Amino acid sequence: MISGKHKLAQPDPDDVPKAVINRLSLYLRELQHLLRNGKTTISSSQLGRLFGFTDAQVRKDLTCFGQFGHPGIGYRCEELVVAIRRILGTDRVWTVALFGVGNLGRALLGYKGFSAKGFQIVAAFDADPHKVGSMIDGVCIEPMDRLDDVVARQQIQLAMITVPAAVAQAVADLAIEAGVAGIVNFAPVTLSVPDDVSLVGVDLATELEQISFSVANRDKSG
Amino acid sequence: MISGKHKLAQPDPDDVPKAVINRLSLYLRELQHLLRNGKTTISSSQLGRLFGFTDAQVRKDLTCFGQFGHPGIGYRCEELVVAIRRILGTDRVWTVALFGVGNLGRALLGYKGFSAKGFQIVAAFDADPHKVGSMIDGVCIEPMDRLDDVVARQQIQLAMITVPAAVAQAVADLAIEAGVAGIVNFAPVTLSVPDDVSLVGVDLATELEQISFSVANRDKSG
Repeated sequence: MISGKHKLAQPDPDDVPKAVINRLSLYLRELQHLLRNGKTTISSSQLGRLFGFTDAQVRKDLTCFGQFGHPGIGYRCEELVVAIRRILGTDRVWTVALFGVGNLGRALLGYKGFSAKGFQIVAAFDADPHKVGSMIDGVCIEPMDRLDDVVARQQIQLAMITVPAAVAQAVADLAIEAGVAGIVNFAPVTLSVPDDVSLVGVDLATELEQISFSVANRDKSG
Repeated sequence: MISGKHKLAQPDPDDVPKAVINRLSLYLRELQHLLRNGKTTISSSQLGRLFGFTDAQVRKDLTCFGQFGHPGIGYRCEELVVAIRRILGTDRVWTVALFGVGNLGRALLGYKGFSAKGFQIVAAFDADPHKVGSMIDGVCIEPMDRLDDVVARQQIQLAMITVPAAVAQAVADLAIEAGVAGIVNFAPVTLSVPDDVSLVGVDLATELEQISFSVANRDKSG
């Protein structure tokens, strides 16, 4: 019934809440950490306890995608790592283009965490002719009029947008026209994209809300 | 029973899953948007539908903190905005110090979304003597040996850490010793902090996992 090659259930990605995917990311990171420390199996309650989730929550998150537990054993860490990477789509290499080489763009070009997960920034675009032609962290800055050409030649799948808010929609439109299938938007504006293009908006301030919630409520109870 | 000043339930912040807080952030943003467009009330199912959540999920998220719905009306947008801001602790101004003025640090100093939510970066620290003394987005870069002094004088509550991974723990220890109560860590390393200090780790790659999941599963079903 359960073999090395799981049959993964394939729910419509739009039906899976973002929070479930975030939890799978967490589980994956922890399972990889456990594996490096020589642990080979883990129960749903042990896995949940690491994050303050119930065992039922862990099982529910995973059951969306298939049957991974083994009676009397729990989860085999290595098996679950392979399965979650397949679910998340990080069992392959994704080619990414960055749009906008300002401070945040430069920071993302130098961010080590992306390539470890299979995301390779292979091209960067900027409207500033002074930046075009220079190399940052091994990536050459291209002008926007080379977009179609570069996306086709490098087979770019995803776009990361760090341009100013005022031009983000126009840049997204061009990237989609050139063929990218998914966009991670860091510009502080809501983009609209066609149904067949995936979009994630990153709002750095939500992380601060997490910490203000925690500190504010600690203060009250203290 | 329900008045302008809600009596908020005060759960232990450690008992509230991060995902609930993230959803409150989402609700808040959308409610503020609705208010600007003149909408005064909304039902839990309408609010949930905007994000693909069930009405039960919305009600459950809010019931942790109090009773906000009005029979036959739903939620009053303005009332709920006030309540969520109070829950999140963003009904006040938070003073933040930034540690590490590299590309990411510079990007965060220039990020407009923070001050709109009451997070004011009032100080920045860097170990590089060439950076110390310069001003970026109205903030003066200070040397680390002025830390205690600056934190006390500016009454700094939160730290944002964007130093290299190798020195992040040492910087966090110093910030805590100087008196900060919460840390947002962007360095790609897990920090350990005392129980009475709040910590959020930001992993920019999780946003990319969200998009690879979506694109990968779209591909399969296509």
